[in-house]
Order: sequence, then C-alpha cells, then structure tokens
Amino acid sequence: MEPKVVRMTSIGIVRRESPEGDEKDRSIVARVVIDPDLTSALAGIEEWSHIYVVFYLHQMAQPRVSGIRPFRWIDHSFDGIYATRSPRRPNSIGLTLVELLRREENVLWVRGLDAQDGTPVLDLKPYPDWDRGQWITVKEFRAPAWLREINKNS
Amino acid sequence: MEPKVVRMTSIGIVRRESPEGDEKDRSIVARVVIDPDLTSALAGIEEWSHIYVVFYLHQMAQPRVSGIRPFRWIDHSFDGIYATRSPRRPNSIGLTLVELLRREENVLWVRGLDAQDGTPVLDLKPYPDWDRGQWITVKEFRAPAWLREINKNS
Repeated sequence: MEPKVVRMTSIGIVRRESPEGDEKDRSIVARVVIDPDLTSALAGIEEWSHIYVVFYLHQMAQPRVSGIRPFRWIDHSFDGIYATRSPRRPNSIGLTLVELLRREENVLWVRGLDAQDGTPVLDLKPYPDWDRGQWITVKEFRAPAWLREINKNS
Repeated sequence: MEPKVVRMTSIGIVRRESPEGDEKDRSIVARVVIDPDLTSALAGIEEWSHIYVVFYLHQMAQPRVSGIRPFRWIDHSFDGIYATRSPRRPNSIGLTLVELLRREENVLWVRGLDAQDGTPVLDLKPYPDWDRGQWITVKEFRAPAWLREINKNS
C-alpha cells in the first residue's frame, strides 16, 4: 500500500467580521469568499439550506495520532485521532456542516462555521447526500459513552 | 486572495470485495484499510456507529465548473459544480457518510461507501459533530426543487 501524495489548490477563504472572535461559537455568521473565477460554479447552491464546507487547517501544529483526550476533566480512555474531531490530524482537513443563509455572487454567508479568519477553503458539498430517490440522513447513531455523557440531547 | 496550494498524503485505501461491482450501491460493505502505522490513530473509532470518509477521487477526468445537469431527464436549469455532488470538482475530494460496522486492527468495515476499489483515503471523522453539549444534527433542510421531486422521502 504505497501512500499517494495529492495536491490541491484552495478555491476561497473564510472571512469573519471579528477575526479575534471565538470561531467555535456556532451562532456567528461568517463569509466564505470564493475565487471570483469560480462564481459560475456556485450557481444554484443557494437552493440548499445546508452545505458542508471542507477547509484546510492552515495554522495547525504537528499532528498527534493517538493518546487524544478531548476533555481532560472526564475520565475516559485515550482515543486515536480518528475517533475525535481534534484538528491536529495527519491531513489537516476541516469539515463543518453549516447553514447557508444567502449567496451574493461569489460570497456565501453561513452560520456555524468553526474556522478561523483566513482559512483556505477546499470544497463545498450540499447536505444531505442522496441515493436512488432517497436522502441519506442518519436517524439514530451511537457515540462514545464519555461523549454521550456530556452531550445533553443524546 | 492568493490561492494556497496544499499537499496531502493518503492514510489508507478503499477495498471492495468485487472491484467490478457497482460502487454506487450503498448497501454493499467495503473495507477501509488504513496504513498499519496509523492503527493507534483508530483507537476508539469503533464506538461511533457512523463516520465520514474523506477520500481522493483519483480517477476523475478534468473538472467541470458549471453547466452541470445531474439528471438529464429532468428539466431544470444548469447548476454550478458546488450545488451538486458531481465528482468532477476543482479539488477531487470525495465525502461520504457511512455506517461503521466494525474495526479489526487497521481495517474498518463500512456500509454505504460510494468509492471505487483502490481509492486513496485522506481522513476519517466521527458523525455527528457537537458543540457545547449539543449534537449538531440537521432536523429540517431545504433542497433544490428538481431534486426534491425525484427524492421520495423529502
């Protein structure tokens, strides 16, 4: 299994009104400013209420692979990076499901994007996916016990 | 806005029992074989019932940006690539939400992965995301009218 090296070029950038604000506050509205040359690639995206933003975690330190403990005050075993959403991943890919409020030409206004001001954007995809006339949505899911414990509506 | 070029290295590969089978059939079980050096990075992932697989669409032709018509037999206006899930995207990123059936060391057995045999895998993330003690799930969404029309449970 030879690893494959792939190259990508950002298609836009995240802009926040208050670059010093808390990007983890999901109620804040941010802009996704797409390369004006790609404006035609956004045609019709405004008909979706929710989209995925795939971005590049450009300010991340070296990745950690294992021994991750997302909440230090909770007693649980240490996890591998892929059981968590920790940003210090082998490939610095960020993925957030956001609400698409509106589009103005090459600019998308979105709510819930936990990416810093200046973050390069790699891709956008509509939510949800579909297959043979059915939306692919998850009605029930199972999460780790330590995380269910701190999440209220689980 | 200077585009940023980023480099990534695959962390594993998709393996299908029948490489000639229809990878779009979401009922089929496939394996995600992760680099054995990253086995510790998978610790605890089996506690999640659903994960996102982020992969590289390695066999794609040149991207098309606009004028996309996913269903030729339906009368709708031509869309931009980002309003669709067409694989011919500027960055060849695939993203699929799958059911995680089990893990055996560095191998994940998943259902619903629409990626071809041999597809390089870039990242794995648990579903759903969460914020301040709340799961981030979408209860209601809006999709384009032409797609709602062909999807039965919309």
